[in-house]
Order: sequence, then structure tokens, then C-alpha cells
Amino acid sequence: MNRQHTKDSLTIVKIGGNIVDNDEALAAFLADFNRLAGKKLLVHGGGVMASKMAKQLGIETTMVNGRRVTDAETLKVVTMVYAGWINKNIVAELQKIRCNAIGLSGADANVIPAKRRSPLPVDFGYVGDPNPSLINASFISHLIENETVPVFCAITHDKNGSLLNTNADTIAYSLAAALSSVYQTRLFYCFEKEGVLQDVNNPDSLIASMSRTECEAFKKAGIIADGMIPKLDNSFNAIEQGVAEVRIMHAKNLLNGKGTVLRREENL
Amino acid sequence: MNRQHTKDSLTIVKIGGNIVDNDEALAAFLADFNRLAGKKLLVHGGGVMASKMAKQLGIETTMVNGRRVTDAETLKVVTMVYAGWINKNIVAELQKIRCNAIGLSGADANVIPAKRRSPLPVDFGYVGDPNPSLINASFISHLIENETVPVFCAITHDKNGSLLNTNADTIAYSLAAALSSVYQTRLFYCFEKEGVLQDVNNPDSLIASMSRTECEAFKKAGIIADGMIPKLDNSFNAIEQGVAEVRIMHAKNLLNGKGTVLRREENL
Repeated sequence: MNRQHTKDSLTIVKIGGNIVDNDEALAAFLADFNRLAGKKLLVHGGGVMASKMAKQLGIETTMVNGRRVTDAETLKVVTMVYAGWINKNIVAELQKIRCNAIGLSGADANVIPAKRRSPLPVDFGYVGDPNPSLINASFISHLIENETVPVFCAITHDKNGSLLNTNADTIAYSLAAALSSVYQTRLFYCFEKEGVLQDVNNPDSLIASMSRTECEAFKKAGIIADGMIPKLDNSFNAIEQGVAEVRIMHAKNLLNGKGTVLRREENL
Repeated sequence: MNRQHTKDSLTIVKIGGNIVDNDEALAAFLADFNRLAGKKLLVHGGGVMASKMAKQLGIETTMVNGRRVTDAETLKVVTMVYAGWINKNIVAELQKIRCNAIGLSGADANVIPAKRRSPLPVDFGYVGDPNPSLINASFISHLIENETVPVFCAITHDKNGSLLNTNADTIAYSLAAALSSVYQTRLFYCFEKEGVLQDVNNPDSLIASMSRTECEAFKKAGIIADGMIPKLDNSFNAIEQGVAEVRIMHAKNLLNGKGTVLRREENL
């Protein structure tokens, strides 16, 4: 029998802002995350809390295509909320239940450098997009091998002194793609819905599995729209860049795996 | 000649809130910090910016004996400002000048657990005091040996899910004491004054060096008062716990070392 050296498994979990904003749901999710066997890392959102803090500070929130326009004042708010309040509270909560979490932004140890997005066609301001091939997979895997659990907020930097607001789903996909060189990776997008739904108001209309071709057909038919589109684009990008498995699921289903499974094209 | 294995040197630099609050002074200081030879780590304050943010949010700042009373709302503000905005901006600025900084709170990888301060005689709220013997010196030195430069904000945790506001001078002393088991450590307190002054308004009245006994005499004479007292207490604690050298100096003098040198008692 030919026993080759196989890569260790790594689970990358992204938790969405609506769960992060609910103390009880977040605590239940973190307890499940702690129970998840094997090597793992967490990426968290926080848009709901950032919008509340912006409002409290009298800063107007502008969204274009579901993405936050980030001027200098908004960058300060999202950095405070994501890298400060949410990240450190999640780390403290995980430490409480004996999960050795370490919080990171993309600037820390230059783990996720990003490129500021072009101001055309829409000027999103201080918003960056990471390139998976530039992620410092070696440092991240070093932390994981030293039995810490990295917890990423959705802030990166341009290597020129500027922090950048970055979509948390994109960070999760980029980390999964980059770490596929070291691990057999799976990526779980956890949020407040059952998965990808045919009817967004009916949790029983779950689409159990989907390929990119099927996804494109759903998009054309208008069944998949809004914030789900970038999540699915990130998911299929991940699969095409070597991620073994991508699931979109309700946070409460982290341990049972129920949700939508994204499939590689069968003829590939 | 008996050549024993000697410990590597480590410089622990603390930068105060008044410098952190001044973009130009901070950039000049970080450039100097980057030039500082050898292994090093940085601890930063941020009280000035936390007070401004609290004011912007309509939260009253209460200080007792120069220390911030930290209720739940204030804990949120200091965590956002110290661990979020200031810490990540310093890291991004250091990365820009090719210093491989990594930002940490005491909760991250449980590097600095702390004990919530007793509510008697003064209830400071969510304020913690670290015990140097519980600091995770092995993880911190591991980061340093991997050519990263740790940058600490003044937030710790109680290992029971609560973040704690912690005096940055005390964090710097505690790290210096803890890391003395691994390194020959020196501790530099950098701020906006020339050092310990006989007359706080006269920069020419610098006290060049001082032992704890001399310090006590200065205190009795009313020459040393206010915020300088805890800084000096931390300094002498550091010396008594194995730190080789402690200096209190203007941030602009980081590289030339001018300032007040704290001495071990000569008869010890």
C-alpha cells in the first residue's frame, strides 16, 4: 500500500456580524468553535456594531453594493470596533473556555497585506483587497503549530502605513486559499441563516449543494442576490484555489455541518 | 578566562500617551525605535486619545490618583482606542518602515493575565494588575526569536472572559521583570519630559540618576509627585526583580539615552 504523507487538516471558520452582535448567540457559537476538533482559525465580521458606533459618533454610514464606503473617520471606527472591541472580546471569551486564541489584524506580522481598491468605478475609500499569494502563510501556520488559534478581524494594511477595511468573507477565502499550501483546508461561512436559500424568507428552502455553473443559473433567475453574491463568489474562488470543502451554514450548525455545500464542477 | 553563556539583551520601550497623540512626534519616535539595535518590544499608552474618544461619546472620564475609573462603557472605549486604533496604527506604521511588528493585548495567547483590582479602598472598575510571574514569557520570547517585534497595548484580561484596563507603565515593568528570566533586559520609559525633574517646569533640572532611597527622600520633600510616583515605583520594582537598567527619558532621546537613570542601591 502506498502511504503518502498527507497534509494536516485545518478548518477556517468565518462568523458574521449579526451573530457577533448578539451576546448569547456569540457565546454559544464560540463554545461550539472551541469543541470543533483539529486545527482551526476564526475570522469575524462586525459590520452591525461598526454601524451602531458610527451612528453614536454622528458619522454617516454609506453602503454601495452592500459594501461600506470607508473615509478616514469610518476607518477609525471600524478599526476600533473590529480590531479593538470585538477581536479582543472574542479572544478573552475563548481564553475563558481554554481555547488559546490570539487576535490578529492583517497588519500584525504583515500576515495579510492588501491593495487599496481603485477609486473607479466606485471610490470606497480606505478599502483593501488581499491577494492570497501574498499572505504570510508560514507565520500563520507557525502560530497554529504552536497550539494557538488565530482570530482575524477584517482589517488589513497597504504596507505603506495605512490600515484598510476589508470584507471579512474575502479575508476568510484568502486565508483558506493561502493556507491550502500547508494544510488540507475547509472553509465554513457561519451566519444567521440556514445556508443559501431559494426563498430568503423560508428556512426550509435550503439549497443543499451547488456548483459554480448552478450558482450562475440561480443568479440569472434572481434567486440569489444581494450579500449572498460576494459570499458565493468567495466560496467558488476558494474551491478553485485548492480549498477542499466550502460550506455556508447557520452558526448554530457549526458542529453538525448542516447547510449549503459548494461543489467543484463535476467535469473538472 | 571563564566565558559563561550570557543572556541576549532585550530592550523594552514604553511610549507615553502624549507622544502617541501627536502624529509627528509619534512618527519620529517610531523611526528611532526601528533604528534601536537588537531585540526589542514596545508598550504604548493612549490615555489622552481615550479621554477624547470618551468625550466624543458623551462618557464622563473620572480619574482617582491619576488612574482612570473604568466602568463597562469606559472599558469599551479604552479597548477600542488602545487595542484597536492606536495599536494597529503603530503596527502599520512600523511595518511601513520594515519593522516586523505584531500587536498584542494581554488576552492574546494569554500573554498577560491580570487580577481585577479590589474595589476597596477605591473601586476602579474593570482595572487589572498583572503578576510578572504569570506572564507567558516563553510565548513572547518565541515571537521575538522569530524576528517579530511585539507591540503591547495596555489591555489585559482576567482569564474569566473580562478584559481589564491596565496601567501601561505597569505592563512595561511586568514584561521587563518576566522577560529577565530569558534576556538581560533594560527598560526605557519614554514620554514628553526630559526625565525626572527637580522642577517639573524646568527641563534643565534633570535628576541624572537616583536610587530608591534617594527617590523616597525626593518624595518626602514633595519634589517628586503625581504621575511620576507610580512610574518610579514601577522602575524600582523592575530593578529589584532583575531588570539590568531602567531609564526615564524624553521620547526624542531614545537613541542617545539622555534622561534619568534608576540605580540599584549601592549597598545591595
